[in-house]
Amino acid sequence: MKHPPAYYADYLQLDKILSAQSPRSAEFGKPAHDEMLFITTHQVFEIWFKQILHELDSVREMFLGDYVDEKSIGVAVSRLNRVATIQSALIEQFRILETMTPLDFLEFRDFLSPASGFQSVQFRLIENKLGLKRQARLDFNDAPYDKRLSEAHQALAQRAEIEPSLFDLVERWLERTPFLKFGDFDFWRSYKEAVERMLDRDRETIERNPTLSEAEKIQELSQLSRTIENFAALFSEEKHKEFVAMGARRLSYAATKAALLIMLYRDQPILHLPFRLLTALVEIDESLAAWRYRHALVVQRMIGTKIGTGGSSGHAYLKQTIDAHRIFTDFFNLSTFLIPRSALPELPAEAERELGFFYGSESLKK
Amino acid sequence: MKHPPAYYADYLQLDKILSAQSPRSAEFGKPAHDEMLFITTHQVFEIWFKQILHELDSVREMFLGDYVDEKSIGVAVSRLNRVATIQSALIEQFRILETMTPLDFLEFRDFLSPASGFQSVQFRLIENKLGLKRQARLDFNDAPYDKRLSEAHQALAQRAEIEPSLFDLVERWLERTPFLKFGDFDFWRSYKEAVERMLDRDRETIERNPTLSEAEKIQELSQLSRTIENFAALFSEEKHKEFVAMGARRLSYAATKAALLIMLYRDQPILHLPFRLLTALVEIDESLAAWRYRHALVVQRMIGTKIGTGGSSGHAYLKQTIDAHRIFTDFFNLSTFLIPRSALPELPAEAERELGFFYGSESLKK
Amino acid sequence: MKHPPAYYADYLQLDKILSAQSPRSAEFGKPAHDEMLFITTHQVFEIWFKQILHELDSVREMFLGDYVDEKSIGVAVSRLNRVATIQSALIEQFRILETMTPLDFLEFRDFLSPASGFQSVQFRLIENKLGLKRQARLDFNDAPYDKRLSEAHQALAQRAEIEPSLFDLVERWLERTPFLKFGDFDFWRSYKEAVERMLDRDRETIERNPTLSEAEKIQELSQLSRTIENFAALFSEEKHKEFVAMGARRLSYAATKAALLIMLYRDQPILHLPFRLLTALVEIDESLAAWRYRHALVVQRMIGTKIGTGGSSGHAYLKQTIDAHRIFTDFFNLSTFLIPRSALPELPAEAERELGFFYGSESLKK
Amino acid sequence: MKHPPAYYADYLQLDKILSAQSPRSAEFGKPAHDEMLFITTHQVFEIWFKQILHELDSVREMFLGDYVDEKSIGVAVSRLNRVATIQSALIEQFRILETMTPLDFLEFRDFLSPASGFQSVQFRLIENKLGLKRQARLDFNDAPYDKRLSEAHQALAQRAEIEPSLFDLVERWLERTPFLKFGDFDFWRSYKEAVERMLDRDRETIERNPTLSEAEKIQELSQLSRTIENFAALFSEEKHKEFVAMGARRLSYAATKAALLIMLYRDQPILHLPFRLLTALVEIDESLAAWRYRHALVVQRMIGTKIGTGGSSGHAYLKQTIDAHRIFTDFFNLSTFLIPRSALPELPAEAERELGFFYGSESLKK
Repeated sequence: MKHPPAYYADYLQLDKILSAQSPRSAEFGKPAHDEMLFITTHQVFEIWFKQILHELDSVREMFLGDYVDEKSIGVAVSRLNRVATIQSALIEQFRILETMTPLDFLEFRDFLSPASGFQSVQFRLIENKLGLKRQARLDFNDAPYDKRLSEAHQALAQRAEIEPSLFDLVERWLERTPFLKFGDFDFWRSYKEAVERMLDRDRETIERNPTLSEAEKIQELSQLSRTIENFAALFSEEKHKEFVAMGARRLSYAATKAALLIMLYRDQPILHLPFRLLTALVEIDESLAAWRYRHALVVQRMIGTKIGTGGSSGHAYLKQTIDAHRIFTDFFNLSTFLIPRSALPELPAEAERELGFFYGSESLKK
Repeated sequence: MKHPPAYYADYLQLDKILSAQSPRSAEFGKPAHDEMLFITTHQVFEIWFKQILHELDSVREMFLGDYVDEKSIGVAVSRLNRVATIQSALIEQFRILETMTPLDFLEFRDFLSPASGFQSVQFRLIENKLGLKRQARLDFNDAPYDKRLSEAHQALAQRAEIEPSLFDLVERWLERTPFLKFGDFDFWRSYKEAVERMLDRDRETIERNPTLSEAEKIQELSQLSRTIENFAALFSEEKHKEFVAMGARRLSYAATKAALLIMLYRDQPILHLPFRLLTALVEIDESLAAWRYRHALVVQRMIGTKIGTGGSSGHAYLKQTIDAHRIFTDFFNLSTFLIPRSALPELPAEAERELGFFYGSESLKK
Repeated sequence: MKHPPAYYADYLQLDKILSAQSPRSAEFGKPAHDEMLFITTHQVFEIWFKQILHELDSVREMFLGDYVDEKSIGVAVSRLNRVATIQSALIEQFRILETMTPLDFLEFRDFLSPASGFQSVQFRLIENKLGLKRQARLDFNDAPYDKRLSEAHQALAQRAEIEPSLFDLVERWLERTPFLKFGDFDFWRSYKEAVERMLDRDRETIERNPTLSEAEKIQELSQLSRTIENFAALFSEEKHKEFVAMGARRLSYAATKAALLIMLYRDQPILHLPFRLLTALVEIDESLAAWRYRHALVVQRMIGTKIGTGGSSGHAYLKQTIDAHRIFTDFFNLSTFLIPRSALPELPAEAERELGFFYGSESLKK
Repeated sequence: MKHPPAYYADYLQLDKILSAQSPRSAEFGKPAHDEMLFITTHQVFEIWFKQILHELDSVREMFLGDYVDEKSIGVAVSRLNRVATIQSALIEQFRILETMTPLDFLEFRDFLSPASGFQSVQFRLIENKLGLKRQARLDFNDAPYDKRLSEAHQALAQRAEIEPSLFDLVERWLERTPFLKFGDFDFWRSYKEAVERMLDRDRETIERNPTLSEAEKIQELSQLSRTIENFAALFSEEKHKEFVAMGARRLSYAATKAALLIMLYRDQPILHLPFRLLTALVEIDESLAAWRYRHALVVQRMIGTKIGTGGSSGHAYLKQTIDAHRIFTDFFNLSTFLIPRSALPELPAEAERELGFFYGSESLKK
């Protein structure tokens, strides 16, 4: 049977959506025109946050089991890219809020107290579901991030801390990557050798360069030795674990290796979508940071160095969180360990076939 | 007494806002992931439409009486610029919707029937309050624009047709402009003389140009004569009225003269904000057209040349409305009649003083 | 040996780049501040056009031979997406140009005559290399598009008409698609049957719907019969050829079938990147149209209905080209023929394996 | 006499513009496709930098003398808004550069050494002309900012340090503001009284609030006392000078007062454009910071924690400069000292007239 006919306003439940704007300045007898803008901007943010959670949850779902269907990767990439697209629209939207001047904000600011954007539980859920850990968060006014949430919201936020985050799930999926060895080909060994060749060549180039003064040579060699140390830390699982223990890195050793493989051999068909997945995660993280940055600016512009509506010297805190609350930094920093394609060992034919499509490889076989 | 404390989620009525997304695909047993995106995108559009109406109504209010306070112009400009900023964010937002592919849309499209974006009464209100007239609208499927609205919505839309639109109000305000004459200075006569001098000079330049062949001269002179006719129509009130009667122009003769004065002498302090007001109106109109254009593209991309969810071959209609439904075209086209500042008659000192600030002019007097 | 050291300004040849702005208003003794903006905006457009050509040429190169390496598709998609990203930045850039008012433009407009944006040979090259055909172009002032180009530029533009365009190359590549049949699975037959089932069901649903009046049934059935005709034209190669001959369609029958296969089965690993390739082409075409639209607006805003700097009533012409000069319309309109995934015949296991990765399929075999 | 005809490509000097891209990777025998993108992106940046300098210089020119014509303020605002529009397009443009992956960058990165964006003399000129002081700059690798510039470029940068910056010129212009007193009306005294009334009321509200616990009262009062101190520092010229000496503030006391007057009474016609001028400066400064932020992200994404092409650990340095190199912070922070319009003393009629237009005020007089 067919469904009953739909009417635009009913389908979108506009009765609820469009009756939910009640400026407090009017309620308390001093109507301020711009409070409506303040309300609608934040409501729009929250609707988009809900959409982001819808996408993140669906992607987490796909990665929950022990096996991720190859077709799912494509869908996951599309949805994560959608999240990034939404984020970029959200950041743009601050432009609208900024058409309100600080003086106009003052007209109703006091009525909002002590409500504050810090109380957006959906924003906390996004962070938690992506993988921001409680211990990685900066305290705000000596209180944990969820202190000013209602009890129901605290419960929501805390449950999201316990559930496996996208970071956890992608890490596990990376750890399962089967492509680090094919018969005789050992990715990690080949990569390590390639790095060593590259570093040797770099040293030679410096030492034999007749145009460099001794002082310049020393400086260049000292820079090179920093690079060498950096790679040394990558090649030692022990060192890696120390870094993780110190909080300097988070991604497991096995996952790090797989992520590097994917970055370096992304042109292989089977690694293409995984590459785009990692890129999408980095982009989401970057956009989240950009959002915090932009948010901090708006807050400072609106209230200067005053205390925020929630009793917070908000903008200073927000600025600190920009980098501190990043989640996928390890993926971001993988660029440190990339080497030029030309320095990479070529894949043996067998590996090429295994990473390719069935169709082509079969026909080649014959 | 102080107001009671506010909580973020209560203040924004998030219980209503975030519980208003009910995908029909799920309701009818075939949940389609992307329907949520479709719903939230449209809800966000509607929230912004409400904000736009809030701004437009407040500006219409300012222009309702017989006298517009000079300070109001500044506020009106800010609010109209805000509308344009919102519009530009709305247009950007189509990018989000476009992350949904046509095939994904197909998964739930049938459930929406016959709902359609044509049923957004707020969008109709925006058009009507700006000044789009019923008779200027293209019929859709041989039916007037409001046929598919609910009765309550039809009543709303029709009331907005009757109330003075922003176009009407600004036109009346322009007609009252007192600066067309100052003592001996008659703007319209001076402007007309300047135009005639300019056109004479242009003809001479062509005729005396030794590098032009006879054929080229004839072509350039024929172009010039088109320009001359154009201006002739501007200088004849009768001709202007004919154009209005034919629907080729809409703005009254008096308002047209005032608008030209403002465009040409916008550097005079008292004309600066009026100039920015006219510019803002043109920008809003342009953005509305850009919205229709983008909307038409999305519709075509989603459903090709199929019939829309509301039984409409929507994109073709939408494309026709892009230009047909423009409202402030006459302001837009004023550029046709601008002449270079250097060709403009200088204002007499008295006029300069009257158009300037009190402060400076007083001190000059002494 | 190592390369010699580079200096930023030398590497970027800033001596040339930054010495190439010579306002004619200054040269002829009437310096107009805003002419610099006019020059730099157009120079930036041209630099980006060069970059777009660099990308398009590299993609055309990849598709020139009889066989396109699967790895190339990923690279092609990235580069075409880059083109779309550049286009979207270019469109945004009109915002900068629009900070110049029509009156400011008037100050130097005459000095530019008869130069005109129509003389941008790089823009013509982009259109030609994408696949815009001379016969599809609207004449401008009764003259072909390249009439006002210098001879050298005409030669360039005409060579690009003869060389295989991206449209041609992608069409040929689609025609070679080997996946239309696998053993017993015949895509076209299955698809046709699915369409027929869907249309039958639609008719039944209408006929048996007790809530519809007879008049409504007739209307819905008449809409349905239009849809049926539409599909009939798709299933008849003869009809298709007629459409091509009339200019209503351009893409060959074989390529159309392959494109539909790709759209419908894009979740199959081997079809994922081809799907993204087609999407990228549609997006580039759409952005080109958006550029023309925005360009037309700016021109109208600057000069009203006057004749353009090149003697053209430019904006009217530009508006007509928006749709008329589109190239990948047939891909755009494929949405017309999509059917829901649920209505699609499932692929037989053999086909699934052939369209998947070697790795997984091998392990399944065992 | 008429000027000679112009041809598009000649006018824009496209022979120079389009022949200035010479990838070093090709020159040294290892052509990398993406180097072209790297070159064109940076060239476009530099063209826009030139345009920004063109605007900044013209605005500085207007403010050089002892008297700034009121009409100039409108022009200055338009040009500074244009600068902000350009900046926002520049920031968007990083999206294009980000279509290049780190691995693709590696293909030609070594050939660029030791060239670096730090060597963009135009960017340094923009900073210097806006008002960034040498002593406010963070050292980079223990070297002053201009160390790695060529001698000619150092000379240019240093000359711009000596010339009056936009900050200096606007500060002087503010110091000359004549509106701080009108007859009996003393802005500073009235404002101070209004602030004291507001703070008193705030204290009372807290003390008399029956719903607050003692602990909460103490906390709220301690926050209030911080606000009181803040204002105290504003009302003491001595304190202000100490802050300036310490580098915590930069804007002179007189200019600070004038800037506050403008912010608070911006609705007065004569203060409207000055208000928009200050807003434009804040926006430019903010966009410059946003640019640095985005730049730092791109650098980190491209090269991770490696050393930059110019031997720099660039991204860390860039991040530090985001806030450290801000110039108009004092304007930005004025929001701290705004008070609601309702708390502001009303202007006496005489003052209202002096701040208004001549036209209206004259007619009122009669």
